[in-house]
Amino acid sequence: MAEIKCVGILTSGGDAPGMNAAIRAVTRSAIYGGLRVKGIYRGYKGLITDEIQEFKTQNVSNIIQAGGTILKTARCKEFTTSEGRQLAYDNLKRHEIDALVVIGGDGSLTGARIFANEFNFPIIGLPGTIDNDLYGTDSTIGYDTALNTIMECVDKIRDTATSHERLFFIEVMGRDAGFLALNGAIASGAEAAIIPEISTEVDQLAELIENGFRKSKNSSIVLVAESPVTGGAMGLAQRVKTEYPGYDVRVSILGHLQRGGSPTACDRILASRMGAAAIDALLEEQRNVMIGIRNDEIVYVPFSKAIKNDKPINRELLETLRRLSI
Amino acid sequence: MAEIKCVGILTSGGDAPGMNAAIRAVTRSAIYGGLRVKGIYRGYKGLITDEIQEFKTQNVSNIIQAGGTILKTARCKEFTTSEGRQLAYDNLKRHEIDALVVIGGDGSLTGARIFANEFNFPIIGLPGTIDNDLYGTDSTIGYDTALNTIMECVDKIRDTATSHERLFFIEVMGRDAGFLALNGAIASGAEAAIIPEISTEVDQLAELIENGFRKSKNSSIVLVAESPVTGGAMGLAQRVKTEYPGYDVRVSILGHLQRGGSPTACDRILASRMGAAAIDALLEEQRNVMIGIRNDEIVYVPFSKAIKNDKPINRELLETLRRLSI
Amino acid sequence: MAEIKCVGILTSGGDAPGMNAAIRAVTRSAIYGGLRVKGIYRGYKGLITDEIQEFKTQNVSNIIQAGGTILKTARCKEFTTSEGRQLAYDNLKRHEIDALVVIGGDGSLTGARIFANEFNFPIIGLPGTIDNDLYGTDSTIGYDTALNTIMECVDKIRDTATSHERLFFIEVMGRDAGFLALNGAIASGAEAAIIPEISTEVDQLAELIENGFRKSKNSSIVLVAESPVTGGAMGLAQRVKTEYPGYDVRVSILGHLQRGGSPTACDRILASRMGAAAIDALLEEQRNVMIGIRNDEIVYVPFSKAIKNDKPINRELLETLRRLSI
Amino acid sequence: MAEIKCVGILTSGGDAPGMNAAIRAVTRSAIYGGLRVKGIYRGYKGLITDEIQEFKTQNVSNIIQAGGTILKTARCKEFTTSEGRQLAYDNLKRHEIDALVVIGGDGSLTGARIFANEFNFPIIGLPGTIDNDLYGTDSTIGYDTALNTIMECVDKIRDTATSHERLFFIEVMGRDAGFLALNGAIASGAEAAIIPEISTEVDQLAELIENGFRKSKNSSIVLVAESPVTGGAMGLAQRVKTEYPGYDVRVSILGHLQRGGSPTACDRILASRMGAAAIDALLEEQRNVMIGIRNDEIVYVPFSKAIKNDKPINRELLETLRRLSI
Repeated sequence: MAEIKCVGILTSGGDAPGMNAAIRAVTRSAIYGGLRVKGIYRGYKGLITDEIQEFKTQNVSNIIQAGGTILKTARCKEFTTSEGRQLAYDNLKRHEIDALVVIGGDGSLTGARIFANEFNFPIIGLPGTIDNDLYGTDSTIGYDTALNTIMECVDKIRDTATSHERLFFIEVMGRDAGFLALNGAIASGAEAAIIPEISTEVDQLAELIENGFRKSKNSSIVLVAESPVTGGAMGLAQRVKTEYPGYDVRVSILGHLQRGGSPTACDRILASRMGAAAIDALLEEQRNVMIGIRNDEIVYVPFSKAIKNDKPINRELLETLRRLSI
Repeated sequence: MAEIKCVGILTSGGDAPGMNAAIRAVTRSAIYGGLRVKGIYRGYKGLITDEIQEFKTQNVSNIIQAGGTILKTARCKEFTTSEGRQLAYDNLKRHEIDALVVIGGDGSLTGARIFANEFNFPIIGLPGTIDNDLYGTDSTIGYDTALNTIMECVDKIRDTATSHERLFFIEVMGRDAGFLALNGAIASGAEAAIIPEISTEVDQLAELIENGFRKSKNSSIVLVAESPVTGGAMGLAQRVKTEYPGYDVRVSILGHLQRGGSPTACDRILASRMGAAAIDALLEEQRNVMIGIRNDEIVYVPFSKAIKNDKPINRELLETLRRLSI
Repeated sequence: MAEIKCVGILTSGGDAPGMNAAIRAVTRSAIYGGLRVKGIYRGYKGLITDEIQEFKTQNVSNIIQAGGTILKTARCKEFTTSEGRQLAYDNLKRHEIDALVVIGGDGSLTGARIFANEFNFPIIGLPGTIDNDLYGTDSTIGYDTALNTIMECVDKIRDTATSHERLFFIEVMGRDAGFLALNGAIASGAEAAIIPEISTEVDQLAELIENGFRKSKNSSIVLVAESPVTGGAMGLAQRVKTEYPGYDVRVSILGHLQRGGSPTACDRILASRMGAAAIDALLEEQRNVMIGIRNDEIVYVPFSKAIKNDKPINRELLETLRRLSI
Repeated sequence: MAEIKCVGILTSGGDAPGMNAAIRAVTRSAIYGGLRVKGIYRGYKGLITDEIQEFKTQNVSNIIQAGGTILKTARCKEFTTSEGRQLAYDNLKRHEIDALVVIGGDGSLTGARIFANEFNFPIIGLPGTIDNDLYGTDSTIGYDTALNTIMECVDKIRDTATSHERLFFIEVMGRDAGFLALNGAIASGAEAAIIPEISTEVDQLAELIENGFRKSKNSSIVLVAESPVTGGAMGLAQRVKTEYPGYDVRVSILGHLQRGGSPTACDRILASRMGAAAIDALLEEQRNVMIGIRNDEIVYVPFSKAIKNDKPINRELLETLRRLSI
């Protein structure tokens, strides 16, 4: 295998807090290890349109605390075509980039896997998504920050939620995964969470109304994962109106603000460790793996596993939420 | 005029951060001045249903930093009837309450004014509303906190707003007043604000699209006051879709979280000064006035003026926003 | 073993954010499980002075987000005497309390262990300390919040740290443990951490000055664990003055504010899970164990192990910090 | 008077949150008005060492929310000499800079005044200092943010301040001015503030101990302005130890973190308005004035007045604090 002398780095897909901390860690670990680093802007798009710039240690100064990503991110249709990927490969060659570190979610790692196989190109992935839906790592970069953002929003809403028999549905992100909704509910002392993972098992709304919500409580806050499976907050509010007309329902959709903000300590440390580990992995001739942290230890997860496997939620948490909302 | 020996205090209407700081200040200033204090729960409703409790200085310990209101708040239809108000008056008499301090917005002070006139009962109002739409005071209790909350949310959304030619409409509170939208836009570096005050003068959306939004900028954030006059963020997004189909629009509605949160220094100091001034006003035999602060000085504003007059926005701010969004 | 019908709960030692979330979880899980709950104020002191109150689910409403502890905490000399402990035991009997949940650090669990053995009394401990220095659990209640508080303070200090060749020593808590200093340094992008764990191995200050601090950097921030072993920030600054007179040193001691604040999502979830697990443990006839969470699973740690064993720091983190500070 | 075509901008002295918002506003308002803008790094030092760069509107994108100053700041001894100022003038001429906007405190405006007079050079000052000690403006850029930072720190310390008869002295900035201490005390619900303005009138510590501090309160928090006149927190603690040995005193010195952090809405709006007004002032042929905002209106304050006059504290606030701390 050819020696690696220059590493390219890009962020792709939805941005997540901590991506900058990861960019910093990859850049500095690479330079520390004697490698050159090039930053690629706007994800795979910048690979194709050649938005590539040499990075020194100063390029990543004072960014660890910033939300978003200094490398920008974009969706890129051309990269799904073999012509697009050929252009990307040619640019990599021209810039003498020998390996890539890709920070992103499910879709980004899928693209990385295809490209890596097609051109036999070394790629290391870092799990960057607020949804925490990548298999093989206990947490993804951005998840802890999003969880805290949600909690702080619910704390504020609770300040004003005092009237009788009122249901608040607060919609949070998590298209296919209820991590944010379930953990957000426990963290904010909400009464329930409605999540996609158990949507086929049980009618969570019926259960909530019939068993859970007829307490001495003045108000109830329910976190709902945004998902076609759950119906989302709006869908549930509509159901309450027709099926349980006695309840006064309010809806709040947290939306885009969940993606932003300065990363928490947890996300910055996670991103820093993973970024350093990405360079270690390359130097150890690892390829096509995502860096994960499990039980506080760095692990290498083959792309195929990280992408295809569903990450299960912890059922203990469902039970804890139920007990604490009495 | 009969001597005042016992003051009742209530919060009414939508809650606002800083109401607790005001409750604390009224309570302690009254006790400091030798008066007794009674807390009335759930606004005018608690007057009628007799949810009234003696307050000592300890009752208001450690609440200055809490959002919401420890006295709760509620809408109350009975208080709009003379039967309801008679019940309220009877309860006040029974509890030997000689005067009231009412913390709330427009509607709450309107109720106060009617009651005060009907029973010749001394009432002092404190402006408690995030909308800042009460005439006679530079700021209302809760406004500065809501403004900061909005700004922090927009800061987060901006972290993720990087794609090309994308318009973000972020809807903020302010049914009849654009203070939060306009000042929020300046504070968050947004490109524009769409506010009710100038809705009849100019088509703000047309102006925004035609003049303002075709810059080298990657994304534009526009704050929209929730108002039937502006159309709200959803209404505007609909208009863009049909009238300016070239733009990719995203909508975020901040909603209830704007009312909550720990109050800012500004709101706590405002509430503390106003609460102390309310007791001074009663002892100076002022009645039926709202406490305001103008140019850093306490002023007494007759209820009639505070309620009926429109508070004008500062046109200089519109111009500043325009200049800074280039 | 006698059936447990009533559980007492207390917080002891230095307070930590998340203690209230733990009190809430213990109370509600106990009531959910059919037990009665009594809150004991001011730690072991309240056991002796009989400050004990029945807790219902409402007693712990709306406290999950509050820093400090609603049960207060205190040091208690009497509890170190057998007379004091006898009084405590008598009060427990009189209140029909059959078991205790004690939330606190090292010293508190040591007291719990002695008492439990002396009177054959069932006690479950929860690790409540910002220092994270209890063996057998990946994290303690309060640690994540303190870490984020430290990080936010350093973020602010960094805003102003721009002059040349200036060293900032920022002292953080952690008498015998460098978790806060080391992780805080990584999270805040500081240049180094000086911690007690390796103080005997190497002269960390000499290493810092000689190898690490002569970069193109304008300023360097070093986190120092408050400890007789490290010398603390003041001690180090003194050493720099005499041994390395070329440097301009500033000192900042974060102090008490590290203990306070609304707990993070991580701490609230940790506390909620541990609180629920404490009741499970009692019902499973566990005694004299501390609840821990290791690798995301609840574990029972005998008091003797939790107290006596040193919890090692992760050496990988030292290396990561070194690489990222270039 | 020669037409102004190009404006230089610099920040000087201690940095303050909101300086970046001011830089952005000056830059964009100037460009909007058809002027060129040059950023000068490291204050007066960069004028002399020629660290000057053309600024476009993009140079100030996305900085409104950042603490510190992108232009850096430094103390500069050379500028106190006429040789240094001649060098500065020569550089200005060479860069075709016709006017300066200087953002800073007392010392910075003093330097501006001397330079402006010496070379008949147009300078506009913006009040940038957290201390709020400039005459002629209700608030200075950075003051509101520092006040909120202090308040949040005291909120955290209060969470843990529960023991009996304990005095906390928390030292805040404000060498010659008690604005931060006095307003911080009201905002955080502290029991007292010790400030330089009244140090010669009364022994504030004696008054505090003898009259104020013997309540039913468990703990007392006192904010102390860092000042040779007050003695600072350490000095006061020493006095308590010798003069009032019955009290258990704790000291916390907030230090440098008070200067940093993302600016509040209030500071960003203030800085934006003042920055825009600075360009207006230049175009209106104003010279050697500081921009102030009084009673919500832009005013021009001659340097001589801004610097030399003491800004009085509002005595009403002292009385309010006294009444609310019972």
